[in-house]
Amino acid sequence: MNSFGKRFIITTFGESHGKALGCIVDGVPAGLEIDEKFIQSELDRRKPGKSKLETARKEDDKVEILSGTFEGFSTGTPIMMVIFNSNQKSRDYDSIKDLFRPGHADFTYYHKYGIRDYRGGGRSSARETAARVAGGAIAKLMLKTIGIEIESGVCEIDGIKSHTYDFVHAKKSKLYALDPSVELAQEEAILNAKANHDSVGGVVLTIAKGVPIGLGEPLYYKLDAIIAEAMMGINASKAIEIGDGVASTYLKGSQNNDEITPTGFKTNHSGGILGGISNGDDIIVKTHFKPTPSIFQSQDTVTKENSPALCELKGRHDPCVAIRGSVVCEAMMALVLADMTLLNMGKKMEHIKAIYQ
Amino acid sequence: MNSFGKRFIITTFGESHGKALGCIVDGVPAGLEIDEKFIQSELDRRKPGKSKLETARKEDDKVEILSGTFEGFSTGTPIMMVIFNSNQKSRDYDSIKDLFRPGHADFTYYHKYGIRDYRGGGRSSARETAARVAGGAIAKLMLKTIGIEIESGVCEIDGIKSHTYDFVHAKKSKLYALDPSVELAQEEAILNAKANHDSVGGVVLTIAKGVPIGLGEPLYYKLDAIIAEAMMGINASKAIEIGDGVASTYLKGSQNNDEITPTGFKTNHSGGILGGISNGDDIIVKTHFKPTPSIFQSQDTVTKENSPALCELKGRHDPCVAIRGSVVCEAMMALVLADMTLLNMGKKMEHIKAIYQ
Amino acid sequence: MNSFGKRFIITTFGESHGKALGCIVDGVPAGLEIDEKFIQSELDRRKPGKSKLETARKEDDKVEILSGTFEGFSTGTPIMMVIFNSNQKSRDYDSIKDLFRPGHADFTYYHKYGIRDYRGGGRSSARETAARVAGGAIAKLMLKTIGIEIESGVCEIDGIKSHTYDFVHAKKSKLYALDPSVELAQEEAILNAKANHDSVGGVVLTIAKGVPIGLGEPLYYKLDAIIAEAMMGINASKAIEIGDGVASTYLKGSQNNDEITPTGFKTNHSGGILGGISNGDDIIVKTHFKPTPSIFQSQDTVTKENSPALCELKGRHDPCVAIRGSVVCEAMMALVLADMTLLNMGKKMEHIKAIYQ
Amino acid sequence: MNSFGKRFIITTFGESHGKALGCIVDGVPAGLEIDEKFIQSELDRRKPGKSKLETARKEDDKVEILSGTFEGFSTGTPIMMVIFNSNQKSRDYDSIKDLFRPGHADFTYYHKYGIRDYRGGGRSSARETAARVAGGAIAKLMLKTIGIEIESGVCEIDGIKSHTYDFVHAKKSKLYALDPSVELAQEEAILNAKANHDSVGGVVLTIAKGVPIGLGEPLYYKLDAIIAEAMMGINASKAIEIGDGVASTYLKGSQNNDEITPTGFKTNHSGGILGGISNGDDIIVKTHFKPTPSIFQSQDTVTKENSPALCELKGRHDPCVAIRGSVVCEAMMALVLADMTLLNMGKKMEHIKAIYQ
Repeated sequence: MNSFGKRFIITTFGESHGKALGCIVDGVPAGLEIDEKFIQSELDRRKPGKSKLETARKEDDKVEILSGTFEGFSTGTPIMMVIFNSNQKSRDYDSIKDLFRPGHADFTYYHKYGIRDYRGGGRSSARETAARVAGGAIAKLMLKTIGIEIESGVCEIDGIKSHTYDFVHAKKSKLYALDPSVELAQEEAILNAKANHDSVGGVVLTIAKGVPIGLGEPLYYKLDAIIAEAMMGINASKAIEIGDGVASTYLKGSQNNDEITPTGFKTNHSGGILGGISNGDDIIVKTHFKPTPSIFQSQDTVTKENSPALCELKGRHDPCVAIRGSVVCEAMMALVLADMTLLNMGKKMEHIKAIYQ
Repeated sequence: MNSFGKRFIITTFGESHGKALGCIVDGVPAGLEIDEKFIQSELDRRKPGKSKLETARKEDDKVEILSGTFEGFSTGTPIMMVIFNSNQKSRDYDSIKDLFRPGHADFTYYHKYGIRDYRGGGRSSARETAARVAGGAIAKLMLKTIGIEIESGVCEIDGIKSHTYDFVHAKKSKLYALDPSVELAQEEAILNAKANHDSVGGVVLTIAKGVPIGLGEPLYYKLDAIIAEAMMGINASKAIEIGDGVASTYLKGSQNNDEITPTGFKTNHSGGILGGISNGDDIIVKTHFKPTPSIFQSQDTVTKENSPALCELKGRHDPCVAIRGSVVCEAMMALVLADMTLLNMGKKMEHIKAIYQ
Repeated sequence: MNSFGKRFIITTFGESHGKALGCIVDGVPAGLEIDEKFIQSELDRRKPGKSKLETARKEDDKVEILSGTFEGFSTGTPIMMVIFNSNQKSRDYDSIKDLFRPGHADFTYYHKYGIRDYRGGGRSSARETAARVAGGAIAKLMLKTIGIEIESGVCEIDGIKSHTYDFVHAKKSKLYALDPSVELAQEEAILNAKANHDSVGGVVLTIAKGVPIGLGEPLYYKLDAIIAEAMMGINASKAIEIGDGVASTYLKGSQNNDEITPTGFKTNHSGGILGGISNGDDIIVKTHFKPTPSIFQSQDTVTKENSPALCELKGRHDPCVAIRGSVVCEAMMALVLADMTLLNMGKKMEHIKAIYQ
Repeated sequence: MNSFGKRFIITTFGESHGKALGCIVDGVPAGLEIDEKFIQSELDRRKPGKSKLETARKEDDKVEILSGTFEGFSTGTPIMMVIFNSNQKSRDYDSIKDLFRPGHADFTYYHKYGIRDYRGGGRSSARETAARVAGGAIAKLMLKTIGIEIESGVCEIDGIKSHTYDFVHAKKSKLYALDPSVELAQEEAILNAKANHDSVGGVVLTIAKGVPIGLGEPLYYKLDAIIAEAMMGINASKAIEIGDGVASTYLKGSQNNDEITPTGFKTNHSGGILGGISNGDDIIVKTHFKPTPSIFQSQDTVTKENSPALCELKGRHDPCVAIRGSVVCEAMMALVLADMTLLNMGKKMEHIKAIYQ
């Protein structure tokens, strides 16, 4: 169950404190130019330790391709990418070896698998998302050839909302903030929480532009359903909205319907998806992240033997996972759209004719 | 792409105005008592025409099992259930034959498939959800044997929120309202919209009780991710929350973490899921439905040939899809949990030993 | 596990003595003309009772399409086809109700599922192959549009081998014999066995012509591997050969390699497949069927309680399953090739450009 | 399409002359002791260069586990194994860079993907089977805990058949020969072919003992069908037989049926599978390998531009692929049975009760 996608498929492996992590990307069409610098640059955007808003843990996250390319192009065979771990301090976890951190997956993994890999969350660590970003980068390269671009940014932190969405600004902002006018307040909220040994939540806005009409496979592989799956599967994500999302429930049908004109839709309340299929407008998705569960306050918990205990964390953790989460949201969006691009082929007889006749 | 699930798999077929619709449920363990009356009663809860809050279209929705059972028990072979359509008025759709209804899937289906099956939405119609409810009923029968119960209700209509969640009341309420104290206001909101030829949105709360610890298959078949997929795939759904969902982004980590005691979690902000795996607490999910796109006001649209046109709908439609949507949410929750129950088997060596030694 | 294929997917349901059997065919491209007469004619080729070489059981096998088409064309939505059972004599099976027929699946189904559906084999009956033939007919319709034709015939019965392969003759032969010069001897072998209350084995040759280069998805969805799966999954099949098959193991490499010229391969020892991918030559497959296990001699067996018993069958059975099996082989070949045709789309960037640019 | 299995899933990567090859094994139950020495010993059995009957190319095939284990046990997370390539001589392939080797996948890969990775077959090289053997070794470890053992040997070379099957002898034989009395003749056949710059075919017998009744998932994931898929997917395989296979077509039903007694089946013509489900007897499978296509005689072929050319191979190749193929057959059998073991769980309600109640 460590694969995502049906035609453009990523399978990831690796734990936060193991030897390495990485992925196999299967289904990449042959003949795609694989820009390794771009892949690395995507990983660099996600890697920790770039500012005091993030965990102080430094990981180089150098990615190496071990298969699937030849002379700079994909060959149609599986592309394997590996990132060797370098900066693990497993010792940080000695004190919590036999107990479960509140808000973490320790408790559920232990009960499901009967094993306590206590080194930093093991497989459940957000460190695994580096592999998704590597795979997402290849998806982006493919999507770019047909004009699809994906952007993201942080639109809310600790309840402080963006009023404008400036994706160009977000790219250079330390916290990937979409609204420069609230950026400082958002930053302060994070630093205050950090000073209090606490953490804050946030919301990421992800959009995809240039998506052709027709992506999404009803009834059980709808574009919005699979985006929801993709985003809800990111660590710490607790809610997903497509288009107007929650707000659409306050509107009347006459307000919420996007009327149609010969030059396109008048509005985009739907977030670019109707009936689970892209309608040509921007795909718009919000992903809500809970506050980082790793906090440095004393919390009640139990041991493996179910005795009461106090959880007192050491180590280095992001005070707001939404920030680096935005890069992961982009990667998941790219993986979904690449998959849907391939799946849509062959949905009408004229596709068959275009390829085989 | 008309199948849902990996081990407990439902494959549906049928269009709103075709001869029949139904499903094949594959993967049901042999030896489950198949209570046909219960299945029918679930369909009766979903069927339209029970009150003036719903579409006036009447469908008997009589379900018939054609395979997979023997002497009242499942045999381990695929269970096929069919519902013959009885009350289609395709003529209602003659006027919109060549144009696209705003807010509907007409536009995207036409562009994706190159075919305009104009009879009431065809495959994209919410009528298909009858098949999900039939499959979900079998899932519920299986889940019941291990103590899992699923309940739902409407917790918000047109912005009017429930303050209490009374699932017993919801069962007998015409609008499946969770809070009797706001039920009348919610009903009026619907009727007002209906009187204005308009529609309203709403929110459904679904919970699952008695879920064992350990359901959910990280990393790409997490319980929350697949619930999100399941719920976002329901017609008109636009946002999904797990546990505190959106509200969790306003909390600090110290407020949002569920501390653990030897007798269980102190709180349930997480909605019963940690790291994509059930933690033994109630699973809590909110599904947000947009207002019904079928309204009886004149709307701008285009024809198949992309000429401007006015869309003026006739026919019979629910003024608030969230109501009957609640029954569908339960069915999808049941399908997810049944699948996860089967998938979890074999995750540790002691399971293997329990079955084979 | 009752689905076959990844993109062109057939899911079947039904037991030999249940109310109905049939299938859902998912993934059919929209805009394919669905020739219902052709589908019925394929079922007529498979249906029993056409001659004394087959079981005397008569089934009309009238197929009805319940969904997925509109005005004679596929819509891209699942096509459901149902065949209601008409001529079941469950009483024939009363005498074997509590014991297991040698050579049949009774023993294994009972132990796997804990249920004894004794009515004629239930789900394990070859009657289910009617559903495959219906699905295969739709696959053939799609394949025909790109010039792929599938033919089959019986090339061996009871050890009597064909020396020539005349597919035109096979079409009109009662036993689908490929070689008119041995047909009579083959027929006599069947009738002799029948007179002795016994049965014989046989071999079916299936070929596909006009297959484009490039079908098959290495490494684990190779064309030959999936054909082997498809054919070995047919009731009573015990061996599969591709191209020269067993005989190729007696050749030297210099004899077995198909040398290549600018106008094509000099020979076709490979059966049209290299590295799991079609090479443009005819696909050639042999399927070996064991003698029908249903014989009318007394055989040792045990009851459900594992007491010794004598199995003495009544009822009506084919004395040689290979005959009607040939129609099923064609259907399975068609299903595999339709699936591979869709899967191959998107394997190189120029496909992507052909569809999206 | 580089994954095999549904619950116990291997995904492989790597080309013969790339940096590395390996696999991710997903679905391994937590708590399985992972004996790395055993895994390496399996790879050592498959690795080339052990005798003059094999290619002179030497590969260490040292396997390293990068994830999925903790303190010597599986954790339930994906197990990644990598083998770095060490002894590639890509230069050997310079002369065939622009032409297609007869009997190889060069022609079909080029036409399918539009890329010519000429270095030793690239992804289509049998070198990839090292990854299968690594994955198969883990499957064997799991199967051993429930008493399943898999053995294999070469039962025929160049038409010289074994009369006895001595699996203990095969283990120590240079050519994994099952019959010591014909071993020398078989060896001479290989060496003669080699001296003539030619190659020979062979047949591998694989058996599985101790398989519980009930493995196999009808109707489209039958045990025999998936074994056929697994074996036909091995490089150079051209025919698969289950049980008596081809020979069963010469028998009458009364001869071929395995009668049943309270202590088991009287015979095992069926090869341990009835209706696609294991019956408790030994699983018996024959895999027929064509002669190695790489021969050192001049052969007609064409260039990428379809001009006539002569193919004159250099390099080092096995004169009989069946020998090392036997180790791969075992691995594929193990992978199938491990998958089926997991899939069978949850097929009857008493399984559900055993795990959850």
